[in-house]
This record gives sequence, structure tokens and C-alpha cells, in this order.
Amino acid sequence: MPTTESATLQLACELMRRPSVTPDDEGCQALLIARLEALDFHIERLPFGEVDNLWAVRGHHGPVLAFAGHTDVVPSGPESAWQYPPFEPCIDADGMLCGRGAADMKGSLAAMITAVEAFVARHPDHDGRIAFLLTSDEEGPARDGTRAVVEHLRERHERLDYCIVGEPSSTARLGDVIKNGRRGSLGAVLRVQGIQGHVAYPHLARNPVHQAMAALDALIQERWDAGNAFFPATSFQISNLRAGTGATNVIPGELEVIFNFRFSTEVTADALKTRTEALLDAYGLAYELDWNLSGEPFLTAAGALIDAATQGVQAVTGKRPELSTSGGTSDGRFIATLGAQVVELGPLNATIHKANERVRAADLDDLSRIYTAIVEALFGPAASA
Amino acid sequence: MPTTESATLQLACELMRRPSVTPDDEGCQALLIARLEALDFHIERLPFGEVDNLWAVRGHHGPVLAFAGHTDVVPSGPESAWQYPPFEPCIDADGMLCGRGAADMKGSLAAMITAVEAFVARHPDHDGRIAFLLTSDEEGPARDGTRAVVEHLRERHERLDYCIVGEPSSTARLGDVIKNGRRGSLGAVLRVQGIQGHVAYPHLARNPVHQAMAALDALIQERWDAGNAFFPATSFQISNLRAGTGATNVIPGELEVIFNFRFSTEVTADALKTRTEALLDAYGLAYELDWNLSGEPFLTAAGALIDAATQGVQAVTGKRPELSTSGGTSDGRFIATLGAQVVELGPLNATIHKANERVRAADLDDLSRIYTAIVEALFGPAASA
Ligand SMILES: [Zn+2]
Ligand SMILES: [Zn+2]
Repeated sequence: MPTTESATLQLACELMRRPSVTPDDEGCQALLIARLEALDFHIERLPFGEVDNLWAVRGHHGPVLAFAGHTDVVPSGPESAWQYPPFEPCIDADGMLCGRGAADMKGSLAAMITAVEAFVARHPDHDGRIAFLLTSDEEGPARDGTRAVVEHLRERHERLDYCIVGEPSSTARLGDVIKNGRRGSLGAVLRVQGIQGHVAYPHLARNPVHQAMAALDALIQERWDAGNAFFPATSFQISNLRAGTGATNVIPGELEVIFNFRFSTEVTADALKTRTEALLDAYGLAYELDWNLSGEPFLTAAGALIDAATQGVQAVTGKRPELSTSGGTSDGRFIATLGAQVVELGPLNATIHKANERVRAADLDDLSRIYTAIVEALFGPAASA
Repeated sequence: MPTTESATLQLACELMRRPSVTPDDEGCQALLIARLEALDFHIERLPFGEVDNLWAVRGHHGPVLAFAGHTDVVPSGPESAWQYPPFEPCIDADGMLCGRGAADMKGSLAAMITAVEAFVARHPDHDGRIAFLLTSDEEGPARDGTRAVVEHLRERHERLDYCIVGEPSSTARLGDVIKNGRRGSLGAVLRVQGIQGHVAYPHLARNPVHQAMAALDALIQERWDAGNAFFPATSFQISNLRAGTGATNVIPGELEVIFNFRFSTEVTADALKTRTEALLDAYGLAYELDWNLSGEPFLTAAGALIDAATQGVQAVTGKRPELSTSGGTSDGRFIATLGAQVVELGPLNATIHKANERVRAADLDDLSRIYTAIVEALFGPAASA
């Protein structure tokens, strides 16, 4: 029950009423397709596995600007933690649009659609091509979503010049932060082998916890790089540690350690692997190590998209955005591999993935205006002039 | 179906047919009581909680020699792992008595009874007093068993001079090892507190694994003492380590470490606690520590019981036993607090707590002879002469 005439808020609410918990799309993409078809977009559904994906293009030549995003949301958790039902969006007395997906990222999807509608209404014969790359698998394993679509586009040699990902990048006010890159993420499961035994007979056992402790401390203390102008220093974190069966008199036979690097462009995943293994070898451990590279770092240092986004934010909010590469990974890591300039620009992220997710309703209207301004800067009459 | 006329083996089989999985006695003590009553023992049943205990004494004055043991056994585990059914004792083609409890410790209980029967038959008016201290809670929590009986005896100011615990002390041949003491056992659960967070934002979190690693390594490297003539050096072992929820992108909020000291008479439990806490404090950890002292060390360095046991083994087996304090804890730790000289002397421990527990049938007959020789040395005519 939005109390506004805003087309952006109405569309956001329509999307939020669909409980599209990852990887379910629940008809969100059909809703968006109807709007895009009305704008003469060429629609391609690209399902992979159980995941609904969408690639839609308007225009036939010239550079491609894609809006990228996801229709899936994280689960609501217990409804009792919510002030309003998570899948019954409403605007509260403070003007906040409340409900799952308000900020991450159905609000952004609605703003993208209305932004393009406004732009096309003014410039039906715009320069370049406008595209949408949508998935219902960003919050889940993220295998059959943007990653798969990007591989498909690569095989078809599709051009992609600019990409705006609608992830909630703002921290204190709309547009205060634009993400222009992300650190890489490299994970590993380390299993250190020992010999199980009884605590009363330590000479017959080999405690993998004891064996590994100094090596793990060395990994923790290691300085992997110093970062650079765009990235903080590479960080190493142990997320999980497991040894023992619960019995207090048994020396465990194996230690399992799960750790993760968030790394800058100053190192490579291969270098991190080599250095880690050299260090474990130096401590004489018997181990197995399974690596999982979930994303290389990427960076859009400068260019037409950064300029357009910066000016768009400044024009609508009156303040200049800050560029940042901090935070977790996003689907931008896949899109960047096509050689596109990529930014992430969306609403405030304070409540995402939590109960009572919400976003200022007026921010979504402003976000739509910012998106329009970016398209205008890239493909409007002034751009080609 | 024992293929022997041996009274010891017949009684052992009768006990083993009762599936007295801890803490159930399943009538084992009733069987032993019938035998002891026939010898004019004064019988006291001392149940505590769900645990059946027995205190039986023959004689009215003089020093007290107690045989101590337990009627409970550890579970059999899957029967498919057993060559013969675990609770249907039999003597196999190699002369091995097979079944749960053969070695730990129904064989010993049978040998104690027939040893005393033989001794009393020869010396109905022996010196001193012979006692039995039996429980059905040695393999379980061991709270309502020997510990509770000992407290009861202490309150009654009962005298206890010598105690033979029937635990399987032998390693390669019967009587090769007599345990004359045990190390202490001090356990602890350590919880190191951090601040949970996302691996992408380590500056907002405090990883308790990272914080604790150097301190744990210091505990592992610490030399707690050098042991002494009777005890090996105190040992420290981490048995369990837990941090993280399984999620690979979450910095854990807590690290749980379970560790255990097996300690000599060169340190005290209090000293170990103080030194551990000082070390953790030195590393600035935020932690909780729950200590659990499961046994002080005890030692019977020399005396009439050691002499009698050593001579008894030598007389029956022709070889001199070795004294040892190695291995896990036993109920001897409780009995020693009454000021008694304590030894553990029983059959080979190679198969205890495993599938296909077994003991050489002839060893039980020899063990009965050894026990008789010990009583003879302490309370027979030659002793008082
Ligand atoms: Zn998102
Ligand atoms: Zn036992």
C-alpha cells in the first residue's frame, strides 16, 4: 500500500510482494520483461539449472550500457523479528519503504526500469544500446546466475562497455559511495593430519592441533601486501576451526581449518597459494589443501562511466560520491571479465540481509533520477554532440 | 561354554553373560555376594544414585586389604564387529576367553573371589581383614561409584591399609607391569571471546582464533615440569577445538578449546591453573575458563603391598614385574585418598574397550594364584611369624 504516486515505488512494491527467496524468481522477471517489451527491448530468457536469468537489449549498434541486478532475496528469517510482514511492503510513518528486498535490490531494479523509461521517453532514438542483465541467483551459490550469463555472452562475443550494478553501495546517504572495484576472494579448506590417540599416551599419537599452531600463527602474522591507492592490504581470516570428537580424553586425528583471503590487485591468487603452501611446508605439516577462488579482484579506475556516475550523483544529491573497493564480492567480478567498466551504485546498505530491511522511499526516486542522468551522459544528445 | 573345570573361568563366564553395560550391574554383585556370604563376609550394599556398590569385609580387627573393582563394562559396539557374541563368553581354539569384560574386569573379579576362597580354605582364622570394594560405575561418570563409597568410608573412619585394584595392568605377559600410581588429570574448557563479523570487514570484528593462536602455541611449548623417578613429565594436550558456524565468510565470535593436563607429583593442580591463567592473561585474551580436576596424582612408592605383589608375581610367573605410573586414571585415585597403599594388578590390556575383547584363560587362573600369594604374604601364617 504505497502512499505515493511514484512509479518507482509502485514497481518496487510489486516486486517485493513476490517472495523470491533465492534462487526463486517468483515472476519478478516476467514483471520486468513486460515493462521492457513496452520499451521495445529485445528479450532473451537465459535459464541455467534452476535459475532464471534475463538478457534484454534496446538498440542495434554502438556501445552497450548494461544495468545488472538480481531478483532473488535472502530469506526473511523469523517473521516475529519483523515490524511489518517481510513480503507485504509498506511505507511507514517515517517515509521508509519496508520489506525484504527494499534495499537489496528490488528498489534498485524498479529505479533502473523507471530511469530507462524516462530516458527512452525523451530520446527514443538514443545513441548506443541499453541492456539489462538480471538473475535470480546472486544471494545463493551464484553459479548459474550472472557467471553463467557472462560465459554465454563471452561465447557470443557480445560487446559490453559499461555496467551499473544496482547493489546497495551507499552507507550514510544516497550516493555517498560508488564501488568501482572489489577485492578478490580466495578460500581454502586445510586439513592437517595427525595420529589419533589417548591423552594419557601422547607419545603414541601426533596431535595435529599442536603441530599446526605455529604455522597458523605465522599465516595470521604474515603481511601479504601493503595494498595500493585503490585497495586496502590483503587480509587473511580463519573462519572455521574443527578438531576433536567432543571426547575430552582423545587426541584428535585431524584438524580442519577454513580460511579466506580478501586480496588486492597487488597479489595474485596463484601467489597467495604458493606462499601459503611454502609456509605450511616450512613447518613440516602433513596436510591437504583445497582452494576455492570465488573472485579475482577487479577495478574500474577511471573512464566515461565513473565520470557519468559521479556527475549523476552530484547533479541529483548535490554531493560528490566517494569511490571505494571495500566490502564483499558482487556479481561485478564476473561482468568485469568481459572488459566492461563496472560500478556498483544503489541505496543505503544498513539493513540488508537483516530483519526490517528498509530504504528511504524518496531515495528510490532519486536513485532513478541518478540512473537516468548516467544514461543521459553516456547516450543522450549531449554525449554524441 | 568354558571347556575347563577352573572355578575362576566358570565364575568369569557367569559374570560375562550378564550384559552389565555401565552403569548397570545386571545381578553381577548378587552373584559375588553369594560367594562372599559363603565365606562369612559381612555384606553392605551401598547404592548411590543409580549405581550399585558393594562393601564386604571378612575379619574383625587388624589391617585391611581390599580388592577393588567394577562390574560394569563398556558397550559392545556393533555386534557385527565381534567374532563371537560379546555377551556369550566362550574359550576359543587358542585358549582365549572371549567376550566383553574378559579383561576389563570380570576376569579379575573372578580371580579375586577364587583367590580369597583358596586362602580362607587354608587359613580360616587369618590375620587382618579382607575386604571387597565393588562398583558398577567405573566406566561411566564415576561419580556415584568408588568415589562415593570412599567418601562414605572416610566419614565412618574406616581403616584401609592395602588395596589391589583389578584393572588390566599387564601389557605383554601376565604380571609384567604393576601400576603403583597414576598421574593426575586436570581438564579445562577455554572459551576465547572475540567479535563476530564478516571476513570482508575484519576491522569491524575481532577474530578469537587469531587472538588465541600465539597463546595456545605457548601453552603447547611450555615445559610444565621434568617429571621424576616415578612419573614422566607433565603433558598438555588439546583434545578439541571449535570455532565458526561452517559459513566461510563469517569471522567467528568465539573459540572453544578443550584441553587436558596429565600431571606428575612435581606440580599441583593449583599451580597448573595459576600458570595457565597467567599465560593467557599475558597474551591479553578475553576468556572464560572452566576447570575440571578429575584426579590428583597418587603414588605408592614402596611398602608391604608392593613387596607382596612383586613377590607374588615372581612366584607364579617366574619374572619380576615392572612398576609403572603410566596410562589413564583409575578408581585407585579415590582409594589412595584414604591413605592406603594401592596397586593395580590384572590381566593384559591389549583388547580392552574394543571389539573381540579377550584374555588368555590360563592367565586368569594364574592371576588367582598371584592374588592368593599376596594375601598369603600379608595375612598368612608367615606374615605374622
Ligand atoms: Zn544484492
Ligand atoms: Zn576397568
